[in-house]
Amino acid sequence: MASSENQLENLKKIANQLRIESIRATTAAGSGHPTSCCSAADIVAALFFGEIMRFDPHAPHRADNDRFILSKGHAAPLLYAAWAEAGNFPVEDLMNLRKIDSPLEGHPTPRADFVDVATGSLGQGLAAGLGMALESRLSGRNFNTFVLMGDGELAEGSVWEAASLAGVRRLSNLVAIVDANRLGQSQETAFGADAEIYSARFEAFGWVSYVIDGHDLGEILSVLSYGGQGTRPLAIIAQTIKGKGIPDVEGQLNWHGRALPAEMAEKAIARLRPEAASAQELGLTIPLLDSARAKAAGRPNIRRDAHLVPLTNYEPGSLVATREAFGNALVRMGEADSRVVTLDGDVGNSTHSREFLKRFPDRFFECYIAEQTMVGAASGLAALGRVPFVSTFAAFFSRAYDQIRMSCGISQLNIKLVGSHAGVSIGEDGPSQMGLEDIAIMRAVPGSVVLSPSDATATERLIEIMLEHRGFCYLRTTRTPTPLLYGPEEDFEIGGARILRRLDTALSPGDCVTVVATGVVVFEAVKASDLLASEGISVGVIDAYSIKPLARDLILREAQRTQESLITVEDHYLEGGLGDAVASELSLERIRVDRLAVKSLPGSGKGKELMARHKIDAHAIVQAVYAHLEARKSGLSKEAAA
Amino acid sequence: MASSENQLENLKKIANQLRIESIRATTAAGSGHPTSCCSAADIVAALFFGEIMRFDPHAPHRADNDRFILSKGHAAPLLYAAWAEAGNFPVEDLMNLRKIDSPLEGHPTPRADFVDVATGSLGQGLAAGLGMALESRLSGRNFNTFVLMGDGELAEGSVWEAASLAGVRRLSNLVAIVDANRLGQSQETAFGADAEIYSARFEAFGWVSYVIDGHDLGEILSVLSYGGQGTRPLAIIAQTIKGKGIPDVEGQLNWHGRALPAEMAEKAIARLRPEAASAQELGLTIPLLDSARAKAAGRPNIRRDAHLVPLTNYEPGSLVATREAFGNALVRMGEADSRVVTLDGDVGNSTHSREFLKRFPDRFFECYIAEQTMVGAASGLAALGRVPFVSTFAAFFSRAYDQIRMSCGISQLNIKLVGSHAGVSIGEDGPSQMGLEDIAIMRAVPGSVVLSPSDATATERLIEIMLEHRGFCYLRTTRTPTPLLYGPEEDFEIGGARILRRLDTALSPGDCVTVVATGVVVFEAVKASDLLASEGISVGVIDAYSIKPLARDLILREAQRTQESLITVEDHYLEGGLGDAVASELSLERIRVDRLAVKSLPGSGKGKELMARHKIDAHAIVQAVYAHLEARKSGLSKEAAA
Repeated sequence: MASSENQLENLKKIANQLRIESIRATTAAGSGHPTSCCSAADIVAALFFGEIMRFDPHAPHRADNDRFILSKGHAAPLLYAAWAEAGNFPVEDLMNLRKIDSPLEGHPTPRADFVDVATGSLGQGLAAGLGMALESRLSGRNFNTFVLMGDGELAEGSVWEAASLAGVRRLSNLVAIVDANRLGQSQETAFGADAEIYSARFEAFGWVSYVIDGHDLGEILSVLSYGGQGTRPLAIIAQTIKGKGIPDVEGQLNWHGRALPAEMAEKAIARLRPEAASAQELGLTIPLLDSARAKAAGRPNIRRDAHLVPLTNYEPGSLVATREAFGNALVRMGEADSRVVTLDGDVGNSTHSREFLKRFPDRFFECYIAEQTMVGAASGLAALGRVPFVSTFAAFFSRAYDQIRMSCGISQLNIKLVGSHAGVSIGEDGPSQMGLEDIAIMRAVPGSVVLSPSDATATERLIEIMLEHRGFCYLRTTRTPTPLLYGPEEDFEIGGARILRRLDTALSPGDCVTVVATGVVVFEAVKASDLLASEGISVGVIDAYSIKPLARDLILREAQRTQESLITVEDHYLEGGLGDAVASELSLERIRVDRLAVKSLPGSGKGKELMARHKIDAHAIVQAVYAHLEARKSGLSKEAAA
Repeated sequence: MASSENQLENLKKIANQLRIESIRATTAAGSGHPTSCCSAADIVAALFFGEIMRFDPHAPHRADNDRFILSKGHAAPLLYAAWAEAGNFPVEDLMNLRKIDSPLEGHPTPRADFVDVATGSLGQGLAAGLGMALESRLSGRNFNTFVLMGDGELAEGSVWEAASLAGVRRLSNLVAIVDANRLGQSQETAFGADAEIYSARFEAFGWVSYVIDGHDLGEILSVLSYGGQGTRPLAIIAQTIKGKGIPDVEGQLNWHGRALPAEMAEKAIARLRPEAASAQELGLTIPLLDSARAKAAGRPNIRRDAHLVPLTNYEPGSLVATREAFGNALVRMGEADSRVVTLDGDVGNSTHSREFLKRFPDRFFECYIAEQTMVGAASGLAALGRVPFVSTFAAFFSRAYDQIRMSCGISQLNIKLVGSHAGVSIGEDGPSQMGLEDIAIMRAVPGSVVLSPSDATATERLIEIMLEHRGFCYLRTTRTPTPLLYGPEEDFEIGGARILRRLDTALSPGDCVTVVATGVVVFEAVKASDLLASEGISVGVIDAYSIKPLARDLILREAQRTQESLITVEDHYLEGGLGDAVASELSLERIRVDRLAVKSLPGSGKGKELMARHKIDAHAIVQAVYAHLEARKSGLSKEAAA
């Protein structure tokens, strides 16, 4: 594409305007990354105002917009300035940067309505962009996604993980631009000014790649216009100067993440001013969207009440692993709602997501053994309205925990994670394959829902509820087939629990304990209760299938019926699991909570052996009840003696 | 290197012996991955018995041994067979595979004394190998490290992250071998039989790379013998057949992770038998180690009592951020103990690890923005006896949580992590930069120590203690300068806490509350206590600088002095933090615990504003004390009325 002299002149001016606004806002805030904004200002000016991106700046959520992700989130002031100049919000608001209650946070989050996914933990933008590129194909809207990265963040493996999958899927609608300004935070990057290295890497990962001068607007426009063409994703390595436009700091170390002092800022702005102009002054407008895209955008989604898709018919008395029920439910959700997509990390035959693959191959995204990309791509899909169900072994979500933190926590996206092979009950494969900290880490995501069903019916119902709930949910499944506990008519809810055995006050007049269990050990609790009943000891059992939120009031009520005492049981480490949740939620109530959980590193062995060794099986529960009764008796006799 | 006909014949026989033993053991166990063993058997035979690796099979921890990491940990039976054949343990023990109490777990862990780092979460072996290669250089022992990976795991970004750093550091003593058997768990890998793609990627990442026939022992030996030469690390893409040697399953899908049924196993073994022989039968021996290496191995480490290196002299009354104290302590530890090395992720100027870099550049490893590699390399260094201190923002350890799970949890290595910029108190940079789940995720690592000092002196003392403690420790530091609370003479310990304000029973006769705080909010608790004292309300304050283990007895005792009531305060999410730890540890004691913590997603703003908004500042503590007194009063009046 040939660009006119006039266009280049205008873009130069708007780029400098973005520089001025970035400098001014960070100096006013007293912190921020103006030099990281200045290196990328020409690129962003070209994307927004050079007829590259087609989007409606007043409607950033329009489904047919091209998308832009600022992966190098610390250049947020530049992003904000671009959207302000494009007309999304008043330019004056830029001066609220980093202030409490302003959506213009230090790093971008969806509190600003034009931000789809939070960035600021480096190396995550490309996977999110990949998710958007998949959505572009799936929806037929054919928009392009542009991801701006720093050269420093190319050290993150997550970038190459995403690059590989984008290459495999030949996502020519994805464009990565690297702002190669040579300088990291603490020092020069590993490769300094050698941009060819990055280019060769992208080529090796299945991309088309070009090295350009990132301050030459003609080159920038010319290469960006290849976006969306051909059969490979496009990488542009833009050689830039950190702090470009501020001669005192250009290309210098020790200016990362520092606002300019007021006097220096004034000087820099005065110097840029003659070569700068706002979009309004220049009369710049954003090009209209294609009508073809808008048409595709109008296609309705199929959406039925998930609950009404008939439940899988399980033979009464049969054994079904909850992971298998997940696979069945997933297919049902796919039928109910065309927004549902699934992603798996080469374990679909173990997690049972392959059932969805068989039925809806277009909406199943195989991510191979690349969990960070899997969660990252889900964030891109979720940001554009899909409801991704993402599955792998519960243990392996730990690989993507930063992505979960950013997309499920900070971006508050509507993502559903399902982790299989929870706990020591998986047996011989050993600790590396056992999800034993998944409840702890998922509870620590703000606003999360954490579910842990014990049987197939509960699993299916909870998957329905996850689809209908707007927000991040995690559900853990187990490997071992277990009996059916619930009939198809029973109700479940987020924050619910089921009372499976209720204290028989005739048998034990208020003198016993309630066991709160979750997942596979619910069956152990029931077994323990039955064993104890045969000895005349009545023990209540609650299936706490919702760990966050917890059925606090129900559990408290049952505890109060049993002299303020509970025993919790879980196939999870002691820290951060069900026991911690119960003890903490009831910490104002002076309830006694005895926590059975995995308290040391397990090894390989048979599931049953490991559950016995780690004292979370029926026998251990019986022993805990005995100990509890003993302690109470001696407590009572002490009271009597006093 | 030319290899004799006889040598190749012997290697072929031992490779088949390893196949037989892998098949036999997995069939006996009823689970495992025999086909993944068979594809790599020739490679492992060459490494162990082809005069490639130089090591003492009876002393796997000898510091001058070449090292071998089975990154594709599911091929564990092959690894075990090789060590057994090499003479490390009796071949009969292979039949204990996957049994409870056997060190021969489903995936390798250091329970087997020849395993340095646990594997089985794919894509982690190369970073550990990189750490070992760094150690080889640092110690002058010049041993080589060999890492065997699967082709499927090359989808993990962590592999490319480590590959990049190995290329940057020109670690020619590192050899990666890819067992490219084409088949993943659920399907073919993304690139199938196209081994050239992998080779091109390694070349682009700064390696020398060769594609070979992974069943041609001549080729294997010839290429492996380049290891340790030249100036670049060596990658070998070995094209193999999954299930090689078992004609019924060779190259077929759906045989991943399945033991052969007994009859099939017998048939396969019978077929391999004529072409197989044990090391003993063949009279094979492992070559002797170089004397040069042994000499280097004898060099003594400097080790002094860390406590005796004089504490940094802080001006009384000055403000010092705990991250700054960490930097100072790190230098002191470097002086005390030559085992100490540090790794950082391009934030050394923020975490203050750069102080160590200035003083001990050889023992500082810049990992750039590559947290997974940073923790992975630390595991390799720790496995060989170094004590790595690894620092980045607390939030960014979430990026390496699977590596932490494997190396700090399952391998139980002696690694020290230090996370800076904890909590909302960091202010304007926003939630992506705030460590708000670090305590939760570190508590969930089995055997972990979790520390959270409030002042510079405590930080320095705790860093000393971390060095002297053998095992995984995490310490969080904060960004903001804070007053000095402790003098140089004060003692700290793992599992300790300090009483800062003790209830004045004359003022409030047992009728108040104890506040348990940690980190930066300790100062808020002290301030609240002082404010309340001026109103005649006496409030105890405990600095819980050790969160795991917790000073349970001390906290309980103080709670008992204040009518079984506590208020906890922390700059961390509610779930899994100090409040959860206190409530859970005291859950048998019926102590009332009111938890102040960050209960919703924070944004940008000034640190003080955010602490106020999230109700963890002095004002919020005062309010919580009032509410507590009010609740008690109404409780007492209810009791009186009853």
